[in-house]
Amino acid sequence: MPSLTGNALIGQSGGPTTVINQSLVGLIEECVASDSIRHVYGAVQGIKGVLEENLIDLGRESKETLEAVANTPCAGLRSVRMKPTREQCEQALQVLKKHDVRYFFYIGGNDSAETAHILNQIAVEEGYDVRLFHVPKTIDNDLRVTDHCPGFGSAAKFVASAFMGDNQDNRSLPGIKIDVVMGRHAGWLTAASALARQNEGDGPHLIYLPERDFTVEAFVGDVERMYKQHGRCLIAVSEGVHGPGGAPLITSGEKDSHGNIQLSGTGALGDFLAGEIKSSLGSKLRVRADTFGYLQRSFAGYVSEVDAHEAREVGRTAVRQATSGNVPHGSIYIRRTGNGSEYGAEFDVTELKNVAKDTRDLPEEYLSGSNDVSAAFLEYVRPLVGTLPVTGQLSDFPIG
Amino acid sequence: MPSLTGNALIGQSGGPTTVINQSLVGLIEECVASDSIRHVYGAVQGIKGVLEENLIDLGRESKETLEAVANTPCAGLRSVRMKPTREQCEQALQVLKKHDVRYFFYIGGNDSAETAHILNQIAVEEGYDVRLFHVPKTIDNDLRVTDHCPGFGSAAKFVASAFMGDNQDNRSLPGIKIDVVMGRHAGWLTAASALARQNEGDGPHLIYLPERDFTVEAFVGDVERMYKQHGRCLIAVSEGVHGPGGAPLITSGEKDSHGNIQLSGTGALGDFLAGEIKSSLGSKLRVRADTFGYLQRSFAGYVSEVDAHEAREVGRTAVRQATSGNVPHGSIYIRRTGNGSEYGAEFDVTELKNVAKDTRDLPEEYLSGSNDVSAAFLEYVRPLVGTLPVTGQLSDFPIG
Repeated sequence: MPSLTGNALIGQSGGPTTVINQSLVGLIEECVASDSIRHVYGAVQGIKGVLEENLIDLGRESKETLEAVANTPCAGLRSVRMKPTREQCEQALQVLKKHDVRYFFYIGGNDSAETAHILNQIAVEEGYDVRLFHVPKTIDNDLRVTDHCPGFGSAAKFVASAFMGDNQDNRSLPGIKIDVVMGRHAGWLTAASALARQNEGDGPHLIYLPERDFTVEAFVGDVERMYKQHGRCLIAVSEGVHGPGGAPLITSGEKDSHGNIQLSGTGALGDFLAGEIKSSLGSKLRVRADTFGYLQRSFAGYVSEVDAHEAREVGRTAVRQATSGNVPHGSIYIRRTGNGSEYGAEFDVTELKNVAKDTRDLPEEYLSGSNDVSAAFLEYVRPLVGTLPVTGQLSDFPIG
Repeated sequence: MPSLTGNALIGQSGGPTTVINQSLVGLIEECVASDSIRHVYGAVQGIKGVLEENLIDLGRESKETLEAVANTPCAGLRSVRMKPTREQCEQALQVLKKHDVRYFFYIGGNDSAETAHILNQIAVEEGYDVRLFHVPKTIDNDLRVTDHCPGFGSAAKFVASAFMGDNQDNRSLPGIKIDVVMGRHAGWLTAASALARQNEGDGPHLIYLPERDFTVEAFVGDVERMYKQHGRCLIAVSEGVHGPGGAPLITSGEKDSHGNIQLSGTGALGDFLAGEIKSSLGSKLRVRADTFGYLQRSFAGYVSEVDAHEAREVGRTAVRQATSGNVPHGSIYIRRTGNGSEYGAEFDVTELKNVAKDTRDLPEEYLSGSNDVSAAFLEYVRPLVGTLPVTGQLSDFPIG
């Protein structure tokens, strides 16, 4: 392909992560360094900002500001949950043309890849030469092709650390504790709670993922068994658990423009499950439920170092791939080159259609029975969270 | 007073903090080093462990184990919520006598100080020579006499960091967000959310504390005004907010043995307030509520360095005071010696009755209007949380 010179535009879309701005800053750095790119613009609130021509100049930011932004959670460009229509995509392309945008980078999940994919189709039809790239992010870790998604490692570290603490809390003051973890369709983040187990008897003692059908009857039976065994029970539940055939456990709630029912930002599921345990096993039981909520995706000052590094790299790689002229469009992905202490990652590009629309659940090999994860999953997830806290317990030596 | 030689017993009581084991390890270190103390025992689950003679030998733990325990959140000795009767206290004293316990250290809040106080009265009546000391801890920061309570600084750092992230989350995806923070009677921890404000327009935009009467009407009016001003609204609400005369906003729920209604471990208050906003201001508004729950008191790997250090020191000070023979009983407290970069702390002892029973609300000078805190409060709290994350924002330079 011939080399292409013009302006670059960056947008961020969907739910935040704590390292999504690492990707933004990686993109800006490489855009500024590239001979093919004259100006690097940002679209405020993703595709909404494109449609409204709400654009800002990112090339004038100081290195100090960019580093501060890179270490700040959530979308520095601000985000949007919007699935543009075909007509809106055509309109967005006119804005790209008007500002001579020849490189468009969209940081987001599979819905954002889909938006980039549609924009690309229209550009090809209209014969407008623009390189459209999707830069992956999602705490849900549910994108296809890539080994894992930037943003997931940090959220997994938060969840593992939260469960480490709550395991000690539950050991200090025994009872039944339910923690509801994000993950609408896929159980990756909830599964990471298993990293909290460091000592004999540590929770979570039960882990419920959307990859398995959930019934209240089986749940109550599992809890009763674990409570008898340990004198306490710590439970990880994905917000996306559902009955056979996908039947929701709780039916009320609003929907976003992608048709997704609101699961986060409410304690309803946890309170419902706590109520079910009390009504089945006894109202005097000490049963509590916490819903981790937005803290998982936005807590400041606590990230996986590995994840932060990789998030920066996917941004840099996107610009290098786009300006290389090797491919006209694509989605950046991570390939794992080793495991354990040999862990390493390479960054490559795949076609937009391979990542758009569909998502990826936990494969069968990462599940164990109906309420746990496998050793293979722990091997998969451990390198992604970076350094975890180490907990210690008294030996309980007898006296005298 | 004559010097006293015998065994020491340590217990932990009430809700966990992330640094409560620093105090435990500080106590063990000094007990082991003291010539007056032969053996150092631990009571598993506080006063319950005393009554059941569930005692362990803490003197045999290795230095490595103790350091690991010090850095692990929640009660290493395990805890209890139990207000012993007079008869149970008499029974507990018999156990102390039986094991020649001459030094009893009880780590906890005001209820624990009260337990130590009653035990002391009975010991005096029975002529049994034992030094009874209360070692303060509580994320609620509501003990009297002391400038602040070990455990509070770390919880305040967690809350501030959570609000920093959630402020960026709310800026990324604008809407109305309610975060419910722990604190049954006093608003100290919720007030610490104000530390999250670093840039112009940062939330929390409204802070509701139990020190002020709460009405849904005023709340909805405040939110509407802030939402108009900022295009978004981030709200900190103490779990302990109540109507005029202390009327609870939500009346259902179980009570513990101290007569306290369950406030944590449920999303009910946040969901209730979100519902009130929607029904008043419009059901299409994006309104979310998170309840921070147990993460505030038990999250692993994230503490205030200042708090961790001071928690260790109050434990050490308790043993030094007890073995010095200067006072027969007491509660350790922290005296502040300077502010800002001059911050420093000294550790001293006061009588048990000065700390037992009653608690301490935020004083009027730390409040501002009906929904904010004052600059004086920020000056008070800033040194206690240690290092906070620093957030950055794009300058939003115009293009062209």
